[in-house]
Amino acid sequence: MDDSSEISPLLQERTDDTPSYQAYNTSESGHSPDGLISAAVSDDGLISGDKEDPHLLNAKFEGLDYDVCENVLYQKEEKAKDEKQILRQQVARWVVMFFIGFLTALIACAIDIGIKTMSKLKFHVIKIYFDQCMDYSCLVIPFLLWVALDVAFVFCAALLTAYGEPVAAGSGIPQIKCFLNGVKIPHVVRIKTLFCKVIGVMMSVVGGLAIGKEGPMIHSGAVVAAGISQGRSSTFRIDCKIFEYFRHDHEKRDFVAAGAAAGVSAAFGAPVGGVLFSLEEGASFWNQGLTWRIFFASMVSTFTLNVFLSMYHGKAWQLSYAGLLNFGKFEDITYNGAEIPLYILMGIVGGLLGALFNHINLKLSIFRNQYLSKPWKQVFEAVLVACTTTTVAFILTYTVKDCQALGKDPTLHPLQVHCHDGQYSSMSALWFQTPEESVNSLFHDQKVALFGLFYFLLACWTYGLSVPSGLFIPSLLTGAAWGRLFGIALYSWFPDADWVDPGKFALVGAAAQLGGVVRMTISLTVILIEATGNISFGLPIMIVLMIAKWVGDIFNEGLYDIHIDLQGVPLLHWEPPPMTSHIPAKEVMSYPVTTLRTTENVGRIVDILKKEGHVGFPIVDNYDPDAPPRLCHRFGCLRGLISRSQLIVLLKYKAFNHPTTGKTPNTVQLNTHHFTEIYPRFPSIHVGITEPHE
Amino acid sequence: MDDSSEISPLLQERTDDTPSYQAYNTSESGHSPDGLISAAVSDDGLISGDKEDPHLLNAKFEGLDYDVCENVLYQKEEKAKDEKQILRQQVARWVVMFFIGFLTALIACAIDIGIKTMSKLKFHVIKIYFDQCMDYSCLVIPFLLWVALDVAFVFCAALLTAYGEPVAAGSGIPQIKCFLNGVKIPHVVRIKTLFCKVIGVMMSVVGGLAIGKEGPMIHSGAVVAAGISQGRSSTFRIDCKIFEYFRHDHEKRDFVAAGAAAGVSAAFGAPVGGVLFSLEEGASFWNQGLTWRIFFASMVSTFTLNVFLSMYHGKAWQLSYAGLLNFGKFEDITYNGAEIPLYILMGIVGGLLGALFNHINLKLSIFRNQYLSKPWKQVFEAVLVACTTTTVAFILTYTVKDCQALGKDPTLHPLQVHCHDGQYSSMSALWFQTPEESVNSLFHDQKVALFGLFYFLLACWTYGLSVPSGLFIPSLLTGAAWGRLFGIALYSWFPDADWVDPGKFALVGAAAQLGGVVRMTISLTVILIEATGNISFGLPIMIVLMIAKWVGDIFNEGLYDIHIDLQGVPLLHWEPPPMTSHIPAKEVMSYPVTTLRTTENVGRIVDILKKEGHVGFPIVDNYDPDAPPRLCHRFGCLRGLISRSQLIVLLKYKAFNHPTTGKTPNTVQLNTHHFTEIYPRFPSIHVGITEPHE
Repeated sequence: MDDSSEISPLLQERTDDTPSYQAYNTSESGHSPDGLISAAVSDDGLISGDKEDPHLLNAKFEGLDYDVCENVLYQKEEKAKDEKQILRQQVARWVVMFFIGFLTALIACAIDIGIKTMSKLKFHVIKIYFDQCMDYSCLVIPFLLWVALDVAFVFCAALLTAYGEPVAAGSGIPQIKCFLNGVKIPHVVRIKTLFCKVIGVMMSVVGGLAIGKEGPMIHSGAVVAAGISQGRSSTFRIDCKIFEYFRHDHEKRDFVAAGAAAGVSAAFGAPVGGVLFSLEEGASFWNQGLTWRIFFASMVSTFTLNVFLSMYHGKAWQLSYAGLLNFGKFEDITYNGAEIPLYILMGIVGGLLGALFNHINLKLSIFRNQYLSKPWKQVFEAVLVACTTTTVAFILTYTVKDCQALGKDPTLHPLQVHCHDGQYSSMSALWFQTPEESVNSLFHDQKVALFGLFYFLLACWTYGLSVPSGLFIPSLLTGAAWGRLFGIALYSWFPDADWVDPGKFALVGAAAQLGGVVRMTISLTVILIEATGNISFGLPIMIVLMIAKWVGDIFNEGLYDIHIDLQGVPLLHWEPPPMTSHIPAKEVMSYPVTTLRTTENVGRIVDILKKEGHVGFPIVDNYDPDAPPRLCHRFGCLRGLISRSQLIVLLKYKAFNHPTTGKTPNTVQLNTHHFTEIYPRFPSIHVGITEPHE
Repeated sequence: MDDSSEISPLLQERTDDTPSYQAYNTSESGHSPDGLISAAVSDDGLISGDKEDPHLLNAKFEGLDYDVCENVLYQKEEKAKDEKQILRQQVARWVVMFFIGFLTALIACAIDIGIKTMSKLKFHVIKIYFDQCMDYSCLVIPFLLWVALDVAFVFCAALLTAYGEPVAAGSGIPQIKCFLNGVKIPHVVRIKTLFCKVIGVMMSVVGGLAIGKEGPMIHSGAVVAAGISQGRSSTFRIDCKIFEYFRHDHEKRDFVAAGAAAGVSAAFGAPVGGVLFSLEEGASFWNQGLTWRIFFASMVSTFTLNVFLSMYHGKAWQLSYAGLLNFGKFEDITYNGAEIPLYILMGIVGGLLGALFNHINLKLSIFRNQYLSKPWKQVFEAVLVACTTTTVAFILTYTVKDCQALGKDPTLHPLQVHCHDGQYSSMSALWFQTPEESVNSLFHDQKVALFGLFYFLLACWTYGLSVPSGLFIPSLLTGAAWGRLFGIALYSWFPDADWVDPGKFALVGAAAQLGGVVRMTISLTVILIEATGNISFGLPIMIVLMIAKWVGDIFNEGLYDIHIDLQGVPLLHWEPPPMTSHIPAKEVMSYPVTTLRTTENVGRIVDILKKEGHVGFPIVDNYDPDAPPRLCHRFGCLRGLISRSQLIVLLKYKAFNHPTTGKTPNTVQLNTHHFTEIYPRFPSIHVGITEPHE
């Protein structure tokens, strides 16, 4: 819809040239050391205006407005606020934080209980057929049944993700990291995404894939936070008309950080780790008050989870379920100084294996981007992986003879398989229990290293599929396997040393592997400290994570950062790359810059919004010596910045000035409400001002 | 020394008026809501140039240069850096962090061992006389001896502080907080201060004052960090010529933050708490990489302390001394939801009592500022407090009959006093052991509430004396006392309930009282979680601290903030006070502003530096339409900012331009080294350019 024909009789056409700044020295070619910086600035001359053009990576991503826009409207409303309103907003923040923690924990409970219930069902169904069959001839039936069930579950998960909401794939941590750092990943915090994520992760885990559910929990917390804090839902088209003062990008970001922390807290029983996770990932906006509120949300989350899971397990108020991930009894482990070189060695191994994992996964992901971009192909690949995983599990179960006496650990799913009566196959138990239970087992029981190797490869293939999946558990499991091996080897060399506890080395290996893959530092250390409940073991864990990160960083980045790069997200890291801190911004900017004047022709605004993909435009004016100090230049002075969404609101409400009288005819007097009401789904200029586009 | 007469024949006298910006609307009187903002801007017209004028609070404090000065010199050197240099700096940072943690822990060990040794000696000497005397007639002798010994110790501590280094008084936490937030408190991180602090706190504790040593540990860590990172010492006049690249305010600040964290870590065995403490107090400059390094320093600190104290106690490598403060066995305490209302109540009590403590201490401190400003009066007051403390201890020991069987706890100092053979007076033990041991006792043994009341009053009188003293232990002790009372009361009402554990309520009371006094939030929660070794009890602790803070904030600020205000330190808080966020800076600025031109007369520079106390001057130039965009105005354009210290260096090296040729005659080519070499003791303009003034 072209407004200019309708409006132009009312407005004076401007005839002077649009002023713009001279660019400086753009003949020095735009030096963009890692490809990220050039992607962050808008390309110039986006004539086609096609947002879906895959060759223009940057066009896919908009920035979030994390600066508070202190315009006249804002200042007027700030002045008009009374103490009661300020107090109400403060209280509202705490109330929202409480519910973020509470609901995130409930969702975590639901996921956990759902997975356990469905897993039990699956196990019982398969057990019937396994028990009927004690020799190899009739094994085909239970095998096919097992495969069919797994495929069915994974098929559902992949369908939901590939066709329902692709941004629900993976863990969600890279997307949340981008969101917290100012890049708007489309649909990342929608309720629909939450739905696909929750159902999808349950299906994937029950389907036996080599994944964990912790990452998706963090994403879920973020969505819950975004939803509650805005008091509305686009998916359900309801607007509770509360929390309007939170309908700004920077407010939403603060709550999303709390949601992510609550998710970590529920997943690992690690409230402080959750806070540090949000800090570490979304460093740019930390402030004291926010950290305290995020901590509150985390605490509420772990407490709520604790209460509900305790009630579910019939031990109400015993509060022994701080998080979904239970490492077992590590509170009493100690270490002595002589072991530190061993930990350093394990850290090196973790860094190497983690770098290898990331490298393989990177190659796989590039392959997927090129050849498996169609949804049906993605679903097919997921099904294929499910088949393979189940087949491997089946083969290992039958070839590895590792029978344990029944009753050793009642939470496992005992299958007799080829063992004698009164015994069960521990290898089969590994595959039938949830991955979290396997973590516990590997830390404490005798398992075979073969499991570790195959799990490593399967996990590497699995991450990046079109299903919601977490990375933590597969990495912990893999590391626990080789760590335990290491411990067992040590034990055989030093049978008398009581400090050689294979379970302890399994824990160290798990930390090393996880650190080698994700390369997180302080938050991961604290998460593991809290999850193990052992503070004094914090130093070995820290050493191991530090070494793993340093070694891994020699080869490649952490897996989350790799996937962010793969998707071409223009994420600016905290520090500039080495040797680039002296490069001035002008060397990477495009030219010319599209600017608007303080009074602008509506037709020109509409043209610009249609032709260009920019989301912000500098406003310039002529140099006025008597005005207050401004950033000035021959061609004009910088007056401010206006965003696309603000222009859209002005156009929508036709808040125009009459060209000669300067009065505003037949329009509403704009206030912040007009902006927060449409936030965040500002209509597109292309489809007309009446329909949402995002 | 007036340079202008020497220089002026070489330079052209400028005759045009010095341009300066017009101020805007200063008729609207400078609205300064809490007195802090007006103190932060320099007064204009400081004709006398007297920095010691007590009526000009702001003149006492300079700001620290926390922005990186990206001038031509800096940019040239950044470009010239090669990868090797960058790597070397990175490695150096980690090495320095290691030694910060290591040395801080050693100092903490030294303090701890020193206190324990001297306390034992004092106890043995007094015990001889006590044992000789079993009736009341001859008690005068041991009493006078006890008083004499305590007075002697406290007298030494007060002498060192009042005459040696006054900034060593108190805990040091307020000063470190100011330093981390950009206010230069004179002498706060000098080695001399460290010396006075360490010796002083040992003397004060042994002298029986109602203080703790934890706060001084944090200050000590900060000094160690400042010293090591600069590779030099002004006190010892040595310059190791290393770490020159760290000789900037922002680098020093980063290391000081690490030192403070290492101090917390050593004091409480709380490395994560230490990191959060630095974060919470010095919020303005947080970044990811720094947090990881600070965590490393904290971990090294607690590990080193652990190793050395274990060796000292003959249990090498058992590593059971994570921190100097030992809360005893709290790892197994649990709670249920029904107790939460009780915790909320205790939080309210803690907030009220904390606000009362702060109020009394504030009144006392105002009195001290007015009437006890002379050092000898301060020493006298300290001695008086020591006498009173000892007398109270003595009287309580003899009037409160609380005998326990010997051998109950071998670390106490048993005095038979009035008890039967084989028993000892537990009240006397409370007064003879170190305060940290008392914490443990009060948490776990039967003690009288009288102790709590008197300790509250003595602690209130003691904080603010001219001795190094910490606040944490007195607050914890007081809270433990009333918390335990509360637990005992509950126990008498519900004798059958097994959840009523007076020790647990002592812990909650301690947290409430400490939170009510210092009003710290997340860092204190985590410190207490780590110190008790109990993560699940984190939620009650957090609730209690939150309530105590909210209740206390109704009446007054935290004690550290109160003392910062008392000293008139122009500390800008994170958030503006409520209802002030719309006030523009121009309404609180002074006028006119002293500016310099890009080429300036040496004589004028010298005059300005002598007459005015400013530490920074804007540089303005005429409007040039062809120049790159600048902040411009009728009267000129802002070109940059130059600091007093930079001007001093230019004057010192006579880096002048010849007025006609523009060449630089007979001077060195300045580089960053010239600035870092003199940092931080830039000479004063008054005493000539050759002597340091700071």
